[in-house]
Amino acid sequence: MSPSAEPDLRHHGDAEVRGDAAALTDLAVNVRTGTPPAWLKAELVASLDGLAAYPDGTAARRAVAARHGLPVARTLLTSGAAEAFVLLARAVRARRPVVVHPQFTEPEAALRDAGHTVERVVLAERDGFRLDPAAVPDDADLVVVGNPTNPTSVLHPAGVLARLARPGRTLVVDEAFMDAVPGERESLAGRTDLPGLVVLRSLTKTWGLAGLRIGYVLADPVTVAELERAQPLWPVSSPALAAARACSGPAALAEAAAAARQTAADRAHLVARLSALPGVTVAGPAEGPFVLIRLADAAAVRETLRANGFAVRRGDTFPGLGPDWLRLAVRDRETTDRFTDALVEAMGKVAAGRALG
Amino acid sequence: MSPSAEPDLRHHGDAEVRGDAAALTDLAVNVRTGTPPAWLKAELVASLDGLAAYPDGTAARRAVAARHGLPVARTLLTSGAAEAFVLLARAVRARRPVVVHPQFTEPEAALRDAGHTVERVVLAERDGFRLDPAAVPDDADLVVVGNPTNPTSVLHPAGVLARLARPGRTLVVDEAFMDAVPGERESLAGRTDLPGLVVLRSLTKTWGLAGLRIGYVLADPVTVAELERAQPLWPVSSPALAAARACSGPAALAEAAAAARQTAADRAHLVARLSALPGVTVAGPAEGPFVLIRLADAAAVRETLRANGFAVRRGDTFPGLGPDWLRLAVRDRETTDRFTDALVEAMGKVAAGRALG
Repeated sequence: MSPSAEPDLRHHGDAEVRGDAAALTDLAVNVRTGTPPAWLKAELVASLDGLAAYPDGTAARRAVAARHGLPVARTLLTSGAAEAFVLLARAVRARRPVVVHPQFTEPEAALRDAGHTVERVVLAERDGFRLDPAAVPDDADLVVVGNPTNPTSVLHPAGVLARLARPGRTLVVDEAFMDAVPGERESLAGRTDLPGLVVLRSLTKTWGLAGLRIGYVLADPVTVAELERAQPLWPVSSPALAAARACSGPAALAEAAAAARQTAADRAHLVARLSALPGVTVAGPAEGPFVLIRLADAAAVRETLRANGFAVRRGDTFPGLGPDWLRLAVRDRETTDRFTDALVEAMGKVAAGRALG
Repeated sequence: MSPSAEPDLRHHGDAEVRGDAAALTDLAVNVRTGTPPAWLKAELVASLDGLAAYPDGTAARRAVAARHGLPVARTLLTSGAAEAFVLLARAVRARRPVVVHPQFTEPEAALRDAGHTVERVVLAERDGFRLDPAAVPDDADLVVVGNPTNPTSVLHPAGVLARLARPGRTLVVDEAFMDAVPGERESLAGRTDLPGLVVLRSLTKTWGLAGLRIGYVLADPVTVAELERAQPLWPVSSPALAAARACSGPAALAEAAAAARQTAADRAHLVARLSALPGVTVAGPAEGPFVLIRLADAAAVRETLRANGFAVRRGDTFPGLGPDWLRLAVRDRETTDRFTDALVEAMGKVAAGRALG
């Protein structure tokens, strides 16, 4: 029961495109369009032949470990990153957990549900939503940060995050969108020199597997064993395991890298269009497959966009943001052009309404 | 860390048919053969087109509720019954949890992992593994029982289990195999008059969806809400939701009913063959899609069967059973005949070896 001034941590972009809203052009959900690709869907169809057998995660775990150059004991497959947040909240003993905001709200929600009292380090727009490691209390023994961060799209330097790692602290870096960053620059995945480092990864966004629930954890073997103990038996379905294996191979990684470059180009176009609009401020530099913008009357603009066929993500449910913020998924240039035209129209309409009112 | 005299609660039938053992004729895993059926696989393939969207359980939950004549608020979809055990262990406050054994070991394992001290009520062969409600301590505030019970195949009368329900107690009835009982005789699913009743159901066994992870909980709305709060976000995948919906319709229920009658006929054949064997005792009457037998030197017989191409489930990992027990999945008559011939041969070989030794 949060006080009413608190943002709804359980609101997520998918709520913007449910039911009647399914016909909207979706800039609310950060899943790559046109996914999953045909070859991946074929792998999933093939996996259905083995459904009568209980899931066996051995091969998928090995593939994920190899993809990051890590031993199997440092990897754990999960039913989406969402399960990883719950496992961490349950299994990691922490007296002073700190979540760096604005960011994806599920880690904090999971920590609270598990009985933790969560402190927030709130990054400010005036600092470009960049993190100063000194802002994190020295005795915080659990720190959660996203990289690149949803919804700000800020990519923290690996060196800055690495400075947060220390003995006696679990440092959780949510890299759910890292595979959308060309070269996975600033990723800590595969690092074994940082004490207490836990990296979360997702296959949902790049591969269009939001409905399948597949992600994984990279951490030291002791933490992996603790998280594994908190998992139910057979936590990941066979099709999800097939996807994890298929998406960890060299061809898939090359395809993801190409998609990341395409996303960067599409994002540059979106940012250029937005930056040309008076009254719109783009947070950044944006490095994820989404862009955070600030504008007046964002709620009314969002409703108007909705009436005109476009779903965008409200920003006010993210701690540290307010009613002036919207998050936009990066789409192809044609969609972006249609959207920015609609945005101009919506902003004009709202401004005119306000002038009349 | 169990003492070494303790059975391994984390051993399950699927371990008997992994890796090199995949070529064995499988009587170890209680999943119906020839499943999932083609129509169901087609539904699953169709669900893959929507994988880029986050799972939306609304329709599946409504279908499951309608199938049992219950309001939606009394149903919860889970990532297999295994997830339900973990949710119950986490969410239900209990000072004196009791598990009725021998039964599926995962509920006790999940309770222990969540920090509970679990008491056992162990049913005896001399009582036909039947439950006397008086054996359950009056102040047990969480009672877990299977019906029909894995591995004994005993079907407890609904009236006996109903007598265990009372205010201040959560009564968990694991009905994972109930849809394999013709008419679902003795099921408590759909009952709303019993305080604290929690019924667990699975779609895994009858429909061959062990790899998909789909089950559900039927309980009062308060308990459902508590369990739901302990779930991760998006706990059930879209293909699993599609399966839950598809398997709750009238045609699917008719097919399951027919399969249950076929299983009963096949089981009668298996029991008849086994009962004709000197030295083999069949627990019973068996009412599930598996049969529990007692025989001398069961471990050696099992190894010999394995060498001859048959996987059966060891009984010694179930509390209350010992090294003399084996569990056999009900298969078609032809497989049963091949198996019982192999069993006779294996028993002869082991007896001869022992005579020589």
